[in-house]
Amino acid sequence: MKFYKAANLTEPKKIIVEKFKKPKIKSDEVLIKVYYAGICGTDISIYNGDYKVSLPLILGHEFTGKVIEVGKDVESELIGKRVTAEINNTCLSYPKKTKCPACKKGFYTHCFERTVLGIINADGTFAQLVKVPAKNIFILPADISNKEGVFIEPIAAAIQTFELSKFKIGDKVVVLGVGRLGTLICSIANSLGADVIAISRSKEKLKRAKIYGASEVIDGNDTKLISKVKELTGGFGADVVVESTGSEKGFNLSVNLVRPRGTVALKSTHGISINNVDQTKIAVDEIKIQGSRCGPFSKAIDFLSSKKIDVKPLISEIFPLEQIEEALKIAPTKTKILIRCN
Amino acid sequence: MKFYKAANLTEPKKIIVEKFKKPKIKSDEVLIKVYYAGICGTDISIYNGDYKVSLPLILGHEFTGKVIEVGKDVESELIGKRVTAEINNTCLSYPKKTKCPACKKGFYTHCFERTVLGIINADGTFAQLVKVPAKNIFILPADISNKEGVFIEPIAAAIQTFELSKFKIGDKVVVLGVGRLGTLICSIANSLGADVIAISRSKEKLKRAKIYGASEVIDGNDTKLISKVKELTGGFGADVVVESTGSEKGFNLSVNLVRPRGTVALKSTHGISINNVDQTKIAVDEIKIQGSRCGPFSKAIDFLSSKKIDVKPLISEIFPLEQIEEALKIAPTKTKILIRCN
Repeated sequence: MKFYKAANLTEPKKIIVEKFKKPKIKSDEVLIKVYYAGICGTDISIYNGDYKVSLPLILGHEFTGKVIEVGKDVESELIGKRVTAEINNTCLSYPKKTKCPACKKGFYTHCFERTVLGIINADGTFAQLVKVPAKNIFILPADISNKEGVFIEPIAAAIQTFELSKFKIGDKVVVLGVGRLGTLICSIANSLGADVIAISRSKEKLKRAKIYGASEVIDGNDTKLISKVKELTGGFGADVVVESTGSEKGFNLSVNLVRPRGTVALKSTHGISINNVDQTKIAVDEIKIQGSRCGPFSKAIDFLSSKKIDVKPLISEIFPLEQIEEALKIAPTKTKILIRCN
Repeated sequence: MKFYKAANLTEPKKIIVEKFKKPKIKSDEVLIKVYYAGICGTDISIYNGDYKVSLPLILGHEFTGKVIEVGKDVESELIGKRVTAEINNTCLSYPKKTKCPACKKGFYTHCFERTVLGIINADGTFAQLVKVPAKNIFILPADISNKEGVFIEPIAAAIQTFELSKFKIGDKVVVLGVGRLGTLICSIANSLGADVIAISRSKEKLKRAKIYGASEVIDGNDTKLISKVKELTGGFGADVVVESTGSEKGFNLSVNLVRPRGTVALKSTHGISINNVDQTKIAVDEIKIQGSRCGPFSKAIDFLSSKKIDVKPLISEIFPLEQIEEALKIAPTKTKILIRCN
């Protein structure tokens, strides 16, 4: 295979599936033949041009594949293994690099010199082949299929929500917006012992949230929404509100649903700013707003292996690589769309 | 004394100093003759109409005074004592009350049924007399003067910043805006072991910040401000940024000065919303935004007694009660104005 096909985003809303020369890997990298890649909200925002990144770029960062080539410093036993990979290519990923100020302090996912698979200056997985640093690889256990493995990255991101926004068993966690990521967050929160209250304007999503761990669901259009949450939280407010709508309305609602000294967890990375933020309420109620992003792959693999979650029903459709643009266009209304890359 | 004088805010920007009947105290309250009351940013915002509260109201909540009357359930030894008082009148303040959902959980300063001295439905200290719950009283040690004691409440608020936004000794703390509260925050951060970097557009304020604990100061108009903070923080960014300008520009700058996984502490309660909040940066850099308000009086008294801070130079002017409106008008450009109430 001297050439491989990849979906190249040349400008917002313009993807060309074209042939590229097979990537050359460095001594500490591996080449992977991609089985499946998932479409996430960030991909949609980059495709639409809301989230600005350097283009052209091959998007895609949730994936499974098989190692087909390894650099000279990488153990050859990796060849043939089914894998996925951490998406932040950092000083830790490249052992020979001098460490940056962030990595020196141990904040590897915040490496100042990082590239990010399919997002920042590193071609991604909407492609037949992808190269990644060997240090970033996670081998899939036998009980995680090629399709299920695509969910490891978003499950890690869902876990990270609560790595940074801790709560106690029995605490009330509101998940506002139960789309692709919100559904996984319901499941993680439930498995960590929260009483999960899911809020969405879509009846279908609320039904799904119930399956994925929400003990209570509330219609987002309900005019008594705030008082209903108060009722369900002993009159106090939610301990944690996960804001996964990404909208101004969602953010401001979160600040009104959370209890004093509670936490609003932000997950949206779609590039759109929010207005009318009530900083006085945040100060007076001593609220914490906690952003979070990529999470621990090993915990996500354990979670998926434990069968606490069945991700298969979350796969809406599977498209071949050639139809990636069609897939990206319908993705906003779907849960998880997979791209079959080989 | 059957009547007493008090400064009554009848509508925004309209204060009438008038006579009222001496307040009747309940069995668990005390009556205090006010020595001095300080003007804080919240008073200015309420006076201007930015921070909406129920009017008419006698403002003022930073104060010292002498107990002159106690309710029947209060120990009579309190009479004659020099005191100040915690400003949140909560379920804890009134022992006979049934506890609200917040107080039941121990979040007393967030009591759902609280009144707040000079802010929410409780007449304040720009008056010759004020009544407060006996449980809220703190007796002034002999080494804290009547004028110095006025600073206990704002020092407690400054301490609260770091009760909720912890840092390690040697961490880099940026204080953005070094006015009334910002100056106290510099001093507290320094005493807790931080390397404090103060930022302000005013040379005078920066000079003062150096006296009050800042080891580095940067002109807020400096176009290289962000890179200077980067330089001073080993290229990483500040561990904590205290945003005490309350402006949109200040908030957005804070998010750019703080390191990944760092904390932006919000202190402003002036009622003005902020726009253009970059939630994607907050999520991607996993930043924490932490609001905070009132703090621990006992720690503030210890701090003041320890002579780690000399608050006397922070008193810009002292006005008699009759000139409160004049005082409120010039207060925005001053550090601390005291009102002599008797």
